[in-house]
Amino acid sequence: MQYTAIKLVKRPTLHITPDLFEVATLETPELEEGEFLLKQTHMSLDPAMKGWMMEDRNSYIPPVELGDIMRSSGVAEVVESRNDKFAVGDRVQGMIGWTEYAVSNGNGLRKLPASIPAEAVLCVLSLPGLTAYQGLMEIGKPKAGETLVVSGAAGSVGSMVGQIAKAEGLRVVGTAGTDEKCRWLEDELGFDKAINYKSDDLARQLKDATPDGVDLYFENTGGPVQHITFGRMNAHGRIIVCGMIADYNTDKPSPGPNWINMIRRRLTITGFAMPDHWDNVPAMSEKLLAYFTAGKLKYRAHKLQGLESAIEGINLLFTGGNTGKLMVEL
Amino acid sequence: MQYTAIKLVKRPTLHITPDLFEVATLETPELEEGEFLLKQTHMSLDPAMKGWMMEDRNSYIPPVELGDIMRSSGVAEVVESRNDKFAVGDRVQGMIGWTEYAVSNGNGLRKLPASIPAEAVLCVLSLPGLTAYQGLMEIGKPKAGETLVVSGAAGSVGSMVGQIAKAEGLRVVGTAGTDEKCRWLEDELGFDKAINYKSDDLARQLKDATPDGVDLYFENTGGPVQHITFGRMNAHGRIIVCGMIADYNTDKPSPGPNWINMIRRRLTITGFAMPDHWDNVPAMSEKLLAYFTAGKLKYRAHKLQGLESAIEGINLLFTGGNTGKLMVEL
Repeated sequence: MQYTAIKLVKRPTLHITPDLFEVATLETPELEEGEFLLKQTHMSLDPAMKGWMMEDRNSYIPPVELGDIMRSSGVAEVVESRNDKFAVGDRVQGMIGWTEYAVSNGNGLRKLPASIPAEAVLCVLSLPGLTAYQGLMEIGKPKAGETLVVSGAAGSVGSMVGQIAKAEGLRVVGTAGTDEKCRWLEDELGFDKAINYKSDDLARQLKDATPDGVDLYFENTGGPVQHITFGRMNAHGRIIVCGMIADYNTDKPSPGPNWINMIRRRLTITGFAMPDHWDNVPAMSEKLLAYFTAGKLKYRAHKLQGLESAIEGINLLFTGGNTGKLMVEL
Repeated sequence: MQYTAIKLVKRPTLHITPDLFEVATLETPELEEGEFLLKQTHMSLDPAMKGWMMEDRNSYIPPVELGDIMRSSGVAEVVESRNDKFAVGDRVQGMIGWTEYAVSNGNGLRKLPASIPAEAVLCVLSLPGLTAYQGLMEIGKPKAGETLVVSGAAGSVGSMVGQIAKAEGLRVVGTAGTDEKCRWLEDELGFDKAINYKSDDLARQLKDATPDGVDLYFENTGGPVQHITFGRMNAHGRIIVCGMIADYNTDKPSPGPNWINMIRRRLTITGFAMPDHWDNVPAMSEKLLAYFTAGKLKYRAHKLQGLESAIEGINLLFTGGNTGKLMVEL
């Protein structure tokens, strides 16, 4: 059977452009004993992908090799099987890649309960939810009553961070790039305050929203929110650096704040990336499922249609054009 | 008996100027039961003092109140006593202040063995040694074979950091502001490499001195060393922020590095100040005494003469004019 897959054939310099990719028509192979064939139904698009395309051998995960199918996580259904543990009709989640079909022996895949919608899997139980949980709970170690500021709060990670923090009894202030996103954060997700970072009086609004200062800052964006929030950190504040989306599309990264406040307030700043924490994934998935089942984690999916929509669509992540967790429905 | 003390009567805006102080002539009081009279012999001058003079209520330690004797640590001798535990002739260390004499009930004081020179007490067993140990060992958690860069390496803290790191089997690279200081670090203290940060090819020299990248950065200064070293951090590197002496005398603190490397290398940056760690002082003092007794901690004292020399002399710390741990001999 013929299917389509997308290979990375060139590395981005600054922007992700269509010439980086090659659309290939492939043939599904005969299955060996122990193998099964997956048909992907939902494929996740994440900001981290830009890093995976680049040639930084010192990054947290090796880049995708040129000529290989582009890396991504997704939800798929078993459509043919020579493996006892995976039956036709089973749903799985894993790093499936930019492809309609894939052959697997089960390594690195996780079986999904039938009750969870595929969109929830990609929004809650995949990279966004796991990243939010790892960063906020394992690194930030929040205490009820503390104040959290999260930038990129309407993004796939940020929206999970804020909701987990609310579930844990924190005061939650988020920043986002449109008034509509801010309303969603306040009205639907229960944020205490959401602020449009493009406001003229951003500093004043952030100050008013954090009368007791800031104990935790979850950083997804960089930019002015970083500098203002850094200046409002309380003693022993913790900053978790997860993303710097403001700088992914520039070759002149903007400077960070001066470090003197690190000493005055005895701050800790920690950068992290999920590949260091895969061992913790099963335990975190349990926690996330519990929040989700209790109705505490809402999400918005922004669905593109068809595999090839990923090529242009991924840039929505860097322009802020997506309205929810970006994914491709196949 | 009359004696001299120096009070803080004005807060610094940018520089420490003589008009901030008032030289007072005081009279020693009659001792109450349990009290004793101290004659200070050596008084420490430290960069942290500038922070103690300023009006930042959010800092790690309350500022010195206007009209109070300026805060400092020192070594003193008991010259009169109505306290069973402190006899005339005993030597003590503690926060004695800018004064020739002081009355104490023993609170916060530590008795010193007769065998340790007063200079060693202020260089090794006081703030410099304790700060170095807390930052490097407790926060940095170095492993033998790792590479450390320490800025302000010829300073009172930096020189201790580098020597402790050498004792623990690290590769140690230091930066300092004169060639003479660099020679001292390499020839006397055993640093693997010392670099004059005023060199034209600082970046090249730092690169050559750290062929395997940098695992730990102990920050005392800020400035260009910070930016270059930040860019050379290895995955899971740790940065300990102890001082920013380049910025203490400016009202325009220079920007820090962009945070994207925090994620790519999963770095942790921790700011700290000793007042959070007083509980750990007895244990750390033991360790420091052991290094010192084993001949592993050398020091240079820069001694000023007479209490009033502190008023102008403290600025040597901010111009780099001192050649060793700055102290006043009384």
